[in-house]
Amino acid sequence: MIDTKAYAAFNAKSPLGPFAFQRREPGDHDVLIKIHYCGVCHSDLHQVRNEWAGSTYPMVPGHEIVGKVHRVGPKVTKFAIGDAVGVGCMVDSCRTCPSCSKGLEQYCDGHISFTYNGTEPDKKTVTHGGYSTQIVVDENYVLRVSNKEPLDQVAPLLCAGITTYSPLRHWGVTKGHRVGVLGLGGLGHMAVKIAVALGAEVTLMSSSPSKKADALRLGAHEFLLTSDSHALATSQSRFDVIVDSVSAPHDLVTYASMLRLDGVMVLLGVPDKPSVLPAFPLIMRRRSIAGSLIGGIPETQEMLDFCASHGIAADVETIPITAIDGAYERMLRGDVRYRFVIDAASLD
Amino acid sequence: MIDTKAYAAFNAKSPLGPFAFQRREPGDHDVLIKIHYCGVCHSDLHQVRNEWAGSTYPMVPGHEIVGKVHRVGPKVTKFAIGDAVGVGCMVDSCRTCPSCSKGLEQYCDGHISFTYNGTEPDKKTVTHGGYSTQIVVDENYVLRVSNKEPLDQVAPLLCAGITTYSPLRHWGVTKGHRVGVLGLGGLGHMAVKIAVALGAEVTLMSSSPSKKADALRLGAHEFLLTSDSHALATSQSRFDVIVDSVSAPHDLVTYASMLRLDGVMVLLGVPDKPSVLPAFPLIMRRRSIAGSLIGGIPETQEMLDFCASHGIAADVETIPITAIDGAYERMLRGDVRYRFVIDAASLD
Repeated sequence: MIDTKAYAAFNAKSPLGPFAFQRREPGDHDVLIKIHYCGVCHSDLHQVRNEWAGSTYPMVPGHEIVGKVHRVGPKVTKFAIGDAVGVGCMVDSCRTCPSCSKGLEQYCDGHISFTYNGTEPDKKTVTHGGYSTQIVVDENYVLRVSNKEPLDQVAPLLCAGITTYSPLRHWGVTKGHRVGVLGLGGLGHMAVKIAVALGAEVTLMSSSPSKKADALRLGAHEFLLTSDSHALATSQSRFDVIVDSVSAPHDLVTYASMLRLDGVMVLLGVPDKPSVLPAFPLIMRRRSIAGSLIGGIPETQEMLDFCASHGIAADVETIPITAIDGAYERMLRGDVRYRFVIDAASLD
Repeated sequence: MIDTKAYAAFNAKSPLGPFAFQRREPGDHDVLIKIHYCGVCHSDLHQVRNEWAGSTYPMVPGHEIVGKVHRVGPKVTKFAIGDAVGVGCMVDSCRTCPSCSKGLEQYCDGHISFTYNGTEPDKKTVTHGGYSTQIVVDENYVLRVSNKEPLDQVAPLLCAGITTYSPLRHWGVTKGHRVGVLGLGGLGHMAVKIAVALGAEVTLMSSSPSKKADALRLGAHEFLLTSDSHALATSQSRFDVIVDSVSAPHDLVTYASMLRLDGVMVLLGVPDKPSVLPAFPLIMRRRSIAGSLIGGIPETQEMLDFCASHGIAADVETIPITAIDGAYERMLRGDVRYRFVIDAASLD
């Protein structure tokens, strides 16, 4: 077994603190990864605080993991020692259901082994995530990352990147499409960069005027202030796709009406209070409201390659692990541009 | 001008009563249709009672019109005297916008001339519908109907038929697909017949056990009682498409969870109270909730031809116009199997 240093939540209310545990020895198909960086996702906080229920403690959060291969199992073929690699939200799935067979492991009909706060395929052994010094993962759930961008900026691609890339691709965003991105946070800023790289004309919509300069700097062609009723009124039937990255409750009717005929609004966040369904605007232009969950392993690799070839990475603020509780508080206030990333060296 | 007998609503509260008015003389491209039958749609009642606001009076409702061509304008090429024809929810549209250019006139970006409670392309002349003895319509908005089925049973195809056919086709329902139909009324009973004819495996879902026998008689392969929690629990991730024909407020979370990966639930009705949007089940299987509005002129013709070739028509109860107010009351109670149709001979 491999001694591993980490930070863990010990219950839903206390600050995170140091935690020592053991990773398994790499099996035939396993890769032992020395973690360099791990992004801080809002879902870490939801689960640390048991806001989705079912949390188990101690919990080592983190599913935006990048690092280098340190050791490989005897039958590993895809990776070699020293490779730069990533691990996202899943470390295993059933591998046999129709979804897994199509490379859509995130929609697995069987047991998904989430990277933390989940269980291994035995459904018993608890998984621990990337707020730690190393991790052992089956090579089929390990991604190859580029060395071209700094690794701390690559880490958030493993969740925020794929969560926005997957719906943009699934709904066919391409050159000339008009894409609205609602909210400029960790997800929103990746949605802007990726949609722009796909050739879309991108409008960032936010309630914060202070986000305008950043939106344009990140590549958005336009900024729409959602408190500007005139701007809203002149934006009807405009977008092919709206990526809704806001997880606070908000008025969907306004945004659904901004979709063109057959347009789709994709929800990525789950507000803690339900939203109201706008049936009338959906009916009047055959619009849809859909949801999308991260992405499968093949598409995550495709996204990483796409981002590497387009020079896309996240805007990050790199922190030592000791700053994690303060980072959570700032994240709650929206005070992060645009992703905190833990430097795993601070765990040693 | 052509003297026309009708029944009209004179305000939002009183019973309908006799009303005499004049139709225009047929222009170059117009067809004068002697109305034989007109279906009674729930939207007639909504508009008669001003439940959608903006109603104008006197209002002659009715947009499920069938009859015979009585006279044609000098430049009419598509129809001849004596042809069996139909008129649906639209009698004109802008004809030039992208939607009209694609034959999706129901989503016209300009002015749609709804068959009643609307205005002609001049945006001033009020339109009057099918609770009348005759109607004058531009031939491009007239449909050809089959003489194979009784005309009173064909009439409801012009709204209830196309409203269900269009989404089933748009979302690609075909042999082997699993389709859920929620609600067995005017729309629901057409959805069952058409989905079965398209080759789908159809489950009718209703809160009324009394609808089971009819559902199976209409061709549904299965009946699911929506108060049966065991049946609901065993129906997760099951349907490719759910046609939601219920316009009363209802719990969408239950039904969204019945969709497979990438499944879509299509809303056809607008509840008078908004429903709650179930973000979580949408995200977990990339499901969508969409809306759909009637259908365009080319697709309406396609639907009529499809129904004729499959021997599909509506189950109707034919009434004289004097029974209309009682019919509205029964419709409100769901006491109609499955469409009232006015015999226009009763207006003479």
